[in-house]
Amino acid sequence: MEYDTITAISTPMGEGAIAIVRLSGSEAIQIADSIYIGKKSLKEVESHTIHYGKLIEPKTGEAVEEVMVSIMKGPRTFTREDVVEINCHGGIVSVNRVLQLVLNNGARLAEPGEFTKRAFLNGRIDLSQAEAVMDLIRAKTDRAMNVALNQMEGRLSKLVGKLRQTLLETIAHVEVNIDYPEYDAEEMTHSLLNEKLTYVKREVDKILTTAQQGKILREGLSTAIIGRPNVGKSSLMNALVHENKAIVTDVAGTTRDVIEEYVNVRGVPLRLVDTAGIRETEDIVERIGVEKSRKVLKESDLILLVVNHNEPLSQEDENLFEAVKGLDVIVIVNKTDLEQEIDMNRVKELAGRHPVITTSLLHEEGIDLLEEGIAQLFFQGGIESQDITYVSNSRHIALLQQTIHHIDEALNGIELNLPVDMVQIDITRAWEILGEIIGDTVSESLIDQLFSQFCLGK
Amino acid sequence: MEYDTITAISTPMGEGAIAIVRLSGSEAIQIADSIYIGKKSLKEVESHTIHYGKLIEPKTGEAVEEVMVSIMKGPRTFTREDVVEINCHGGIVSVNRVLQLVLNNGARLAEPGEFTKRAFLNGRIDLSQAEAVMDLIRAKTDRAMNVALNQMEGRLSKLVGKLRQTLLETIAHVEVNIDYPEYDAEEMTHSLLNEKLTYVKREVDKILTTAQQGKILREGLSTAIIGRPNVGKSSLMNALVHENKAIVTDVAGTTRDVIEEYVNVRGVPLRLVDTAGIRETEDIVERIGVEKSRKVLKESDLILLVVNHNEPLSQEDENLFEAVKGLDVIVIVNKTDLEQEIDMNRVKELAGRHPVITTSLLHEEGIDLLEEGIAQLFFQGGIESQDITYVSNSRHIALLQQTIHHIDEALNGIELNLPVDMVQIDITRAWEILGEIIGDTVSESLIDQLFSQFCLGK
Repeated sequence: MEYDTITAISTPMGEGAIAIVRLSGSEAIQIADSIYIGKKSLKEVESHTIHYGKLIEPKTGEAVEEVMVSIMKGPRTFTREDVVEINCHGGIVSVNRVLQLVLNNGARLAEPGEFTKRAFLNGRIDLSQAEAVMDLIRAKTDRAMNVALNQMEGRLSKLVGKLRQTLLETIAHVEVNIDYPEYDAEEMTHSLLNEKLTYVKREVDKILTTAQQGKILREGLSTAIIGRPNVGKSSLMNALVHENKAIVTDVAGTTRDVIEEYVNVRGVPLRLVDTAGIRETEDIVERIGVEKSRKVLKESDLILLVVNHNEPLSQEDENLFEAVKGLDVIVIVNKTDLEQEIDMNRVKELAGRHPVITTSLLHEEGIDLLEEGIAQLFFQGGIESQDITYVSNSRHIALLQQTIHHIDEALNGIELNLPVDMVQIDITRAWEILGEIIGDTVSESLIDQLFSQFCLGK
Repeated sequence: MEYDTITAISTPMGEGAIAIVRLSGSEAIQIADSIYIGKKSLKEVESHTIHYGKLIEPKTGEAVEEVMVSIMKGPRTFTREDVVEINCHGGIVSVNRVLQLVLNNGARLAEPGEFTKRAFLNGRIDLSQAEAVMDLIRAKTDRAMNVALNQMEGRLSKLVGKLRQTLLETIAHVEVNIDYPEYDAEEMTHSLLNEKLTYVKREVDKILTTAQQGKILREGLSTAIIGRPNVGKSSLMNALVHENKAIVTDVAGTTRDVIEEYVNVRGVPLRLVDTAGIRETEDIVERIGVEKSRKVLKESDLILLVVNHNEPLSQEDENLFEAVKGLDVIVIVNKTDLEQEIDMNRVKELAGRHPVITTSLLHEEGIDLLEEGIAQLFFQGGIESQDITYVSNSRHIALLQQTIHHIDEALNGIELNLPVDMVQIDITRAWEILGEIIGDTVSESLIDQLFSQFCLGK
């Protein structure tokens, strides 16, 4: 397929040593050559070579920038099309000027994600691999990056492909039995159908067991810190941010207003909920009101409930324990440097199955234990992300759950002795839904919508 | 000369499609190869070629990233050393991980500006060209970038070189006359000395006439808006920001706290002084106190004094006119949409030689005139930066002024009939000072200090 030639700034915006303006499409080399002066014409050079030269305004001959131009001819490129990368000085004016020049000479400004979309449309990667490209860029910790890297390499695609193959063979067998009953094809008896479908279901279930961990690695563990005033919530926040590198990122590139703060705890990205708010008022419950706070707590993946070692449990403390029932909680008994006034037996009773950790944040004691506790709670102490295929993307998780649903329907039909061609409808649907993960059976509008969430220049 | 191998992230920090980790030094290719798996060993490939592959942790074989590696062998490189550029995914985790891997395998983290410093130390560019690299990255408008581009190409270097040559020949002549009076060398009479030195002085003066414009293009025109409350200062600020693209930049890369706002007015970068402050309180004088405001005004390159067309001039207005005497001022009579109550003759009288412009900011009228006025005031209506060699750097300007001083001293000595070997001391000093511009006669500590102002990775 042939598309028009697109261009965008592919490096982050800001001042740096180098910036890249990338072009992709059949006209990419032609356009670059028309604004370039160097030793050779770019049309004559070998693929995958780098050329020093100047960009000029072709009408006036005015020098625009000093550049290094990389020429990569399709199909051995990211998009499978001809790709040109113009490395220029990393100033805001400089890179915008190069982009403008390229736009004025025949390229079109790429939409967000359009380079990756071309890689998908041109068949170099499937949809789950394309989505992993974005996950990789947005990864907040090494572990999250490994998950994305594996998915980009096609691990999930391979698994899904295998299961779809099994379903397809099952469907084929059924069809043979329906269409050519006179043939000697092995009869796809209900029991055999049952066996195949149960296998697929088990495999999908296995992938889904990694979903919680995968999602946490991808999106971060949203964490709320609660407790009465003056128990040490701010100190806890500061200790977590101080001990671990805080990763602050702009959301989706443009505005400076929305900033998320992540803390990397043993490879788990903790997203501290409403950091600023807690820091300022020291009390999330007080700040947003009791009715609302319950909602915030329910939406958190992890709640750190802090109580004071130096004071008896109050009714307020007991209410907090009540409010977090059924959620993932770690109880922190802080201020062990001061005399014990708290009834630890009662704390453990209230905590129930939740871990209880004692800290003296003032003396920086116990933070290790807390981090260990978080890793234990969500990763049973440690994950080897290299070996497991994680599913981390909500879209994929939803599709896998729908697959299970249709396989259950099919198994149900078998149980009820429905005719096989009725059962076949659900099997076919399961096959289609799995196909949506890798983009095999997916609508154009969904594709547009997925890629629009990408960053510009990718 | 041979140096150790340095590395740094050369693209701006943030999330983007592509990031670059750059290496320079004799071990660059060796180090890259030790962590790379691809079709070929990087040690065997041609210079200026690009290679797809994976980075791995060499001890464990664990995959770290999917990359494109550019190999450029010295001396045809930015630093004249072997240079390797690793293009990886532009995520914060991804690029830091690649940097870490490179550091763990033999490279040293580069200091700010160290790549450019090597280009200077290895003789590829002189000091004024190196400084232009940074000016180019920090350029706020196209014009400013052109000035930097010309300087990077060596225009200033060539001019300085020519003048130094003249001085050197003069010194040589003098020495011949001193050392070998018996030879028949043309006698460097006082009148001939006078002629040569006057020529050099005239040329240096000529360069210095571009200094004001050059400095403004490089550093921006720091602009203060003053006027009584409610005359339209905020509207003026907003109109300037709205009509022209505001360029907001982080200062030197790291913190988000210090942000400068530039407005591009016909190629002139206006730096709006204390933007936030003015916006909030609507009055710079009120906010910082009268004593201090006088200082702020004096430090501004341009003052926009706003008065109200709809009110008679008050004593306060007259005081403001008094306060800005002797400075570069444009008087703006705003609110021409309302009835005239102001005495325009008195305004013109107070304004004296300063331009007076009438606006109705409410109806977006007169902003064009104001912009025209600013361009007139500083650039006599328009500059052709392609044809003039601008001197824009304060260090260069100071050195040129010192050159003039020593030439004046020499000319003075000639006037007083001092012996030529006395005069020679000043000529030699002028030659040395010009040499500092291009880095020919400059101390190591100054070089260190200059390059430390660069951004990381350049």
